Amino acid sequence: MGHNACQLLQPQYYGFMKQHTKQRLLTPGPSPVPSEVLQEMAQPIIHHRTKQFRAIFGELSRLLQKIFCTDGPVLSITGSGTTAFEATQVSLAEPGTKVITVANGKFGERWQDIYDQYQFEQVRIELPWGQVPSATQIQTTLEEHPDASVVTVVHSETSTATACDIQAIAEVVRHTDALLVVDGITSVGAIPIDMDDWGIDVVVSGSQKALMLPPGLGYVALGPRAVERLSQFKPVHTYNLDIRRWLTPWYAQDVPFTPPVSLIRSQRVALEMIQHAGLRNTHQKTAQLAAATRAALTAWGLKLVSKSPSDSVSGAFYPQGIEDRPFRSILRDVHGIHIAGGQDGRMAEWSGEIFRLSHMGYVNADDTLVALNAIEKELIERGCAIEKGSAQAVAGKHLNNLDR
Amino acid sequence: MGHNACQLLQPQYYGFMKQHTKQRLLTPGPSPVPSEVLQEMAQPIIHHRTKQFRAIFGELSRLLQKIFCTDGPVLSITGSGTTAFEATQVSLAEPGTKVITVANGKFGERWQDIYDQYQFEQVRIELPWGQVPSATQIQTTLEEHPDASVVTVVHSETSTATACDIQAIAEVVRHTDALLVVDGITSVGAIPIDMDDWGIDVVVSGSQKALMLPPGLGYVALGPRAVERLSQFKPVHTYNLDIRRWLTPWYAQDVPFTPPVSLIRSQRVALEMIQHAGLRNTHQKTAQLAAATRAALTAWGLKLVSKSPSDSVSGAFYPQGIEDRPFRSILRDVHGIHIAGGQDGRMAEWSGEIFRLSHMGYVNADDTLVALNAIEKELIERGCAIEKGSAQAVAGKHLNNLDR
Repeated sequence: MGHNACQLLQPQYYGFMKQHTKQRLLTPGPSPVPSEVLQEMAQPIIHHRTKQFRAIFGELSRLLQKIFCTDGPVLSITGSGTTAFEATQVSLAEPGTKVITVANGKFGERWQDIYDQYQFEQVRIELPWGQVPSATQIQTTLEEHPDASVVTVVHSETSTATACDIQAIAEVVRHTDALLVVDGITSVGAIPIDMDDWGIDVVVSGSQKALMLPPGLGYVALGPRAVERLSQFKPVHTYNLDIRRWLTPWYAQDVPFTPPVSLIRSQRVALEMIQHAGLRNTHQKTAQLAAATRAALTAWGLKLVSKSPSDSVSGAFYPQGIEDRPFRSILRDVHGIHIAGGQDGRMAEWSGEIFRLSHMGYVNADDTLVALNAIEKELIERGCAIEKGSAQAVAGKHLNNLDR
Repeated sequence: MGHNACQLLQPQYYGFMKQHTKQRLLTPGPSPVPSEVLQEMAQPIIHHRTKQFRAIFGELSRLLQKIFCTDGPVLSITGSGTTAFEATQVSLAEPGTKVITVANGKFGERWQDIYDQYQFEQVRIELPWGQVPSATQIQTTLEEHPDASVVTVVHSETSTATACDIQAIAEVVRHTDALLVVDGITSVGAIPIDMDDWGIDVVVSGSQKALMLPPGLGYVALGPRAVERLSQFKPVHTYNLDIRRWLTPWYAQDVPFTPPVSLIRSQRVALEMIQHAGLRNTHQKTAQLAAATRAALTAWGLKLVSKSPSDSVSGAFYPQGIEDRPFRSILRDVHGIHIAGGQDGRMAEWSGEIFRLSHMGYVNADDTLVALNAIEKELIERGCAIEKGSAQAVAGKHLNNLDR
């Protein structure tokens, strides 16, 4: 099968090559992928029903357990983080039964939408965007609804750059019959979450955030109470997303359906890199990038979107007069800096109102400083009363001991 | 983040490198992936909410329409072929309503299992493995059950290397109110299936078969009657797999959830290669490889598993005394030839009984001849009364005009 390679390099598909500006992806997923991992994506395809695949898959599972801080199974499910979360929702409780759901941003709202879709009875804790649920609030709700079988909480709410105290919440839920299901999609690998130590029953995450992979894999880590629940319960309205179908083969380093082989082998490489850097060091680096970013945003006089900022992602409201789309286009097209805007939900409409920068995964001090300097320059050019160099001055302090 | 590259080249993960035997993947999915496509997998990650991604996704959709022979939407769903098929099942009819399902192999049985899981009322047409449903049989069943809303048929049943006359079946179903949903997972891109011309309502396929990509994407092509049905019908027990959620953004070159960006851009490249080679030429090549393989299997005195062989994959029963696992291990470890064994289902247990070779995607005449010669050699060594060189003699005739 002949092929003209030039056809494959049409500029519209390789926009980055038109100019030589270095591209920096500071969006909160997808996040940048290291070359070592990208190269692994290009390895020849292997069959998934082989010893070689099982060796890779077994090693991936072992590395995932370290990142999730658990001795229990961590399933690799083909799909997005949403796929993996839906799988836990439909596999751990029966439609019609009572669940407690916390929403303090777009993703919490999405998990409520999914439960609605399946006609669960929901006790909803709904908070203004940027705020967090307290352990006391959840304790009270559990006392009022002792028949609730599951509590879902978002650890790091990407849409509002907000993190809650999931350790304190776990301490409450573990003493009840309800399972705690945590959306760790932008927390696992970025900020501390010690699943087993803290007694969390289920943690869900995705490949394209702190885990430095392209999108396409979702993860579900199961504690002993969750595994026990799965053995008692037979979900009705699902097939692919029945967690039990993934759990049984997992013990034999196997998968129920053809898996995305390239992503699985690449995720192993990415996690080996995190392991090599050290999980705690990675958390610390992420926290420093976040502290530096918050210092710059504050120095510019901007209002942070969160009252309890997450270290995974930072967000601020635009100053008066700055238009979201053209502002982010200039950053991207002129500076090569890719940041995110805001999202709309039931409780808030932040599209056009805020911007967000990710600190997850393969982002370092240089990337962050370059981004902050570019944002500063463009804000000043649009008339904001900001002193030139103020980002560098305040953010630099937080980043002095970090690799460039 | 420092990293020692040597760690990434541990022999257990790169089994192929221990010896320099060229590896040939003749398994019916995953199938081999061309280097051009693998290299595209290693491209830097881009964000999916960008013009650049939409240009790629739009182009992919346009190429998919050509391969599926349709002017309608072809959705790219994150997951396996099973994910995509389940999505159509749960999105086009309501649990409790009547569907007609045909099973003549493991995959047909799986689609029945999924309908069972969702508690649909099924009218089952069950055939011995290796046989095909006739258009008349489906017509009679539709006359008996005019209230059936969907008919599902597997075009090329991979487990039994069998293809049915889907054109004739479509001609029957199109004159009724039922939608025809076709499993084209090992037919699209390999054997002719003219969706619009033949009046098929839905065709489902997967990335890792004839479309020359690693696994991780499933496709759902929708004809006008299927689009109309989706507008009338609101599926209850699903979120991710609600086809309507994927269809609405599709018209704007967009996706509802974070997509596997690397696979999407690589699938575009693979389809461009098929386009360049020509779809009809690709069908013809596949048919010639299949004819050559069947000629060799027959010349050796083996019994084909199918009474209506598919050109996507060929299968034969092992001769007396040949043990499946050690036989395929020798082929793999000594010859670098990867073929598939049999599968078990409700109607047959072919695991250990048969072997299968794929003709889909990036497999050529050389790969096929090398595989047949290796199989012949190992059969002779195990005492089969086969004349040396008989594969070459009969298969070669079919392959003379093909690229090597």
